[in-house]
Amino acid sequence: MFYCPTRIIFADNAMQKAKEYIASFGKRALIVTGKNSAKQSGALSDTISVLREADINYALFDRITENPTLDIVMEGKSAFLQNNCDFVIGIGGGSPVDSAKAISLAAANSLNRDEMYNTSVFKKAYPILAIPLTAGTGTEVTQYSVLSDPLTKKKAGFGCDLAFPTLAVLDPKYTLTLPPKVTLHTALDALSHLLEGLYSNQRSPIVYPFIYKGIASIMKFLPIVLSKPENYLAREELMRDALYGGMVIAQGSTTLQHSIGYPLTSFYGIPHGLANAMVMEDIMELYYPAIQQELDDLFSYLQINKDNFYTWLKSLPFERKIDFSEDFIDKAIPQIMSSRNMALNPLPVTEQQVRTLLENLRKT
Amino acid sequence: MFYCPTRIIFADNAMQKAKEYIASFGKRALIVTGKNSAKQSGALSDTISVLREADINYALFDRITENPTLDIVMEGKSAFLQNNCDFVIGIGGGSPVDSAKAISLAAANSLNRDEMYNTSVFKKAYPILAIPLTAGTGTEVTQYSVLSDPLTKKKAGFGCDLAFPTLAVLDPKYTLTLPPKVTLHTALDALSHLLEGLYSNQRSPIVYPFIYKGIASIMKFLPIVLSKPENYLAREELMRDALYGGMVIAQGSTTLQHSIGYPLTSFYGIPHGLANAMVMEDIMELYYPAIQQELDDLFSYLQINKDNFYTWLKSLPFERKIDFSEDFIDKAIPQIMSSRNMALNPLPVTEQQVRTLLENLRKT
Repeated sequence: MFYCPTRIIFADNAMQKAKEYIASFGKRALIVTGKNSAKQSGALSDTISVLREADINYALFDRITENPTLDIVMEGKSAFLQNNCDFVIGIGGGSPVDSAKAISLAAANSLNRDEMYNTSVFKKAYPILAIPLTAGTGTEVTQYSVLSDPLTKKKAGFGCDLAFPTLAVLDPKYTLTLPPKVTLHTALDALSHLLEGLYSNQRSPIVYPFIYKGIASIMKFLPIVLSKPENYLAREELMRDALYGGMVIAQGSTTLQHSIGYPLTSFYGIPHGLANAMVMEDIMELYYPAIQQELDDLFSYLQINKDNFYTWLKSLPFERKIDFSEDFIDKAIPQIMSSRNMALNPLPVTEQQVRTLLENLRKT
Repeated sequence: MFYCPTRIIFADNAMQKAKEYIASFGKRALIVTGKNSAKQSGALSDTISVLREADINYALFDRITENPTLDIVMEGKSAFLQNNCDFVIGIGGGSPVDSAKAISLAAANSLNRDEMYNTSVFKKAYPILAIPLTAGTGTEVTQYSVLSDPLTKKKAGFGCDLAFPTLAVLDPKYTLTLPPKVTLHTALDALSHLLEGLYSNQRSPIVYPFIYKGIASIMKFLPIVLSKPENYLAREELMRDALYGGMVIAQGSTTLQHSIGYPLTSFYGIPHGLANAMVMEDIMELYYPAIQQELDDLFSYLQINKDNFYTWLKSLPFERKIDFSEDFIDKAIPQIMSSRNMALNPLPVTEQQVRTLLENLRKT
């Protein structure tokens, strides 16, 4: 299976190249973003310039923070409807783009807060333009939106074909000013997406060339970008790798590799990509017996072995351990075991195995 | 740039997996195909079974032959409208699928014969289901349709986003009974599509992993299929390579590598893939100065050099020379020089260079 209906414009000065397509979306846009990065990266002013040139009005909804909530989506829906918008523009990392998708669906289908995970009532969507400012989530080319519910401390995604952005505009220059930690964590998120394409029992061999190329490229260019953040060509490579990661999980979704990280994020604020990376080696070891052929083929392409991969992972500067509260694991287990991704693991995973994975993260 | 809105189902028993999507297209289908291959391959009976299970009526329009004409498209349009169809199903090699696209557009926009190349009047389309029976054209995932006009002896394509099939259903078993020559010629067509992805001045690096993998795979598996036509896994590889080829030319279109073959087909009936192959080495030599980096990167991935590639090409059993009539080249040159693809060459190509390319094909 392969499905990626999003039109992708990946280029230097991509917004200008996107103008004719954006003009076809309507006369009034809601820009969904956070407080800072859209401004700092230059993406917001590029967007506003193009909207003006195309004679499109806009309203700015810049209240998205990390791990967007159902409540902020409801506020965005109101802003969209009050301003009589025709389409939504998400500018940022995963959070604003995921919010933009949810706002489009909430506005188009008059959804209330309780219905945001209920894709069976999603019947239509307003056009969605996604402008990523990180090289990580790949959400600009997926049908997923991950939202948090502060009432239940639950972080969970929904997936629905209507949530694919209509257009994704990727310009590597927007990532040139990302702080090193954000660069690292988002690249690790992209890496875990690419691996998920081999892990998922819904894996799609059509995208294996993207997986292999993306992983090889991250292994080569992430260290370069960490030491030379202004290296445009290396930034461009990472942004393309993250795009591949999005196209990959759009086919086979994700597994425990992803869902085990959600409680780490919702309870301790561990950035999503970092949470994925903390369990990456253990998950690969857990899955290996079920997907030995897929991983051996990957490592053969990379001209390395599994241990070389772990060594590369260990060379990256990120924390491996967390101070857990006594009851964290007991609270996290039910969330993880009930997540939809668990059905996609390449082998059956027990509660005890998940417990062990989490225990291995505990600071001793 | 990357755009491929077609949903792809690539699997053993793919038609059954496609049923829910097909059911959403409507209640009445026009099946567009030729006289034989849809029956022989089993694809027609699979299709009819699925239509019955989904409670969909159908009319059969099985009059497509190689190099479909504007006239047959007009007849298909009438059949579609007379039968009150909701969608079209193209089953076959490039010809039935290209015809199905054209019939969908002709019916949806009430086009007459003179308007079939005029994409500016194409405003909508009926859903298009494409079921390829060869591993070659990639038309199941492109916006192109190539039609011939018997009045002018012109063979030319149009490209339009509305012509992307809604759904492509690929089942490698349909290719198991292809005659060796068809297998060879269609694989060479796929190979030329993959090379076009590097040649075109609208090349898109996003699809380079597909290009590299596809070419490597054709070089490995085409000889295997030629000696063991019933090898399912090798057939599956070739079908995926052809799919990649389609996804590649959907981005950057084609160049002289393609348009020089059209008059060979329309004047002498040389199969399209064979026509591409006959000029492949000379075109690569012609383009090489302009795309040395792209080709060297490809050959580095393949762990061969350019001469090794030519040696592989020479090992394939196909004719390299044609008996031209005296005036053929003079008639062909204006068609080639005026084709839209000429604008996409990686370097300026003169009329004299095209003349030399054609002279090299003349039987002495």
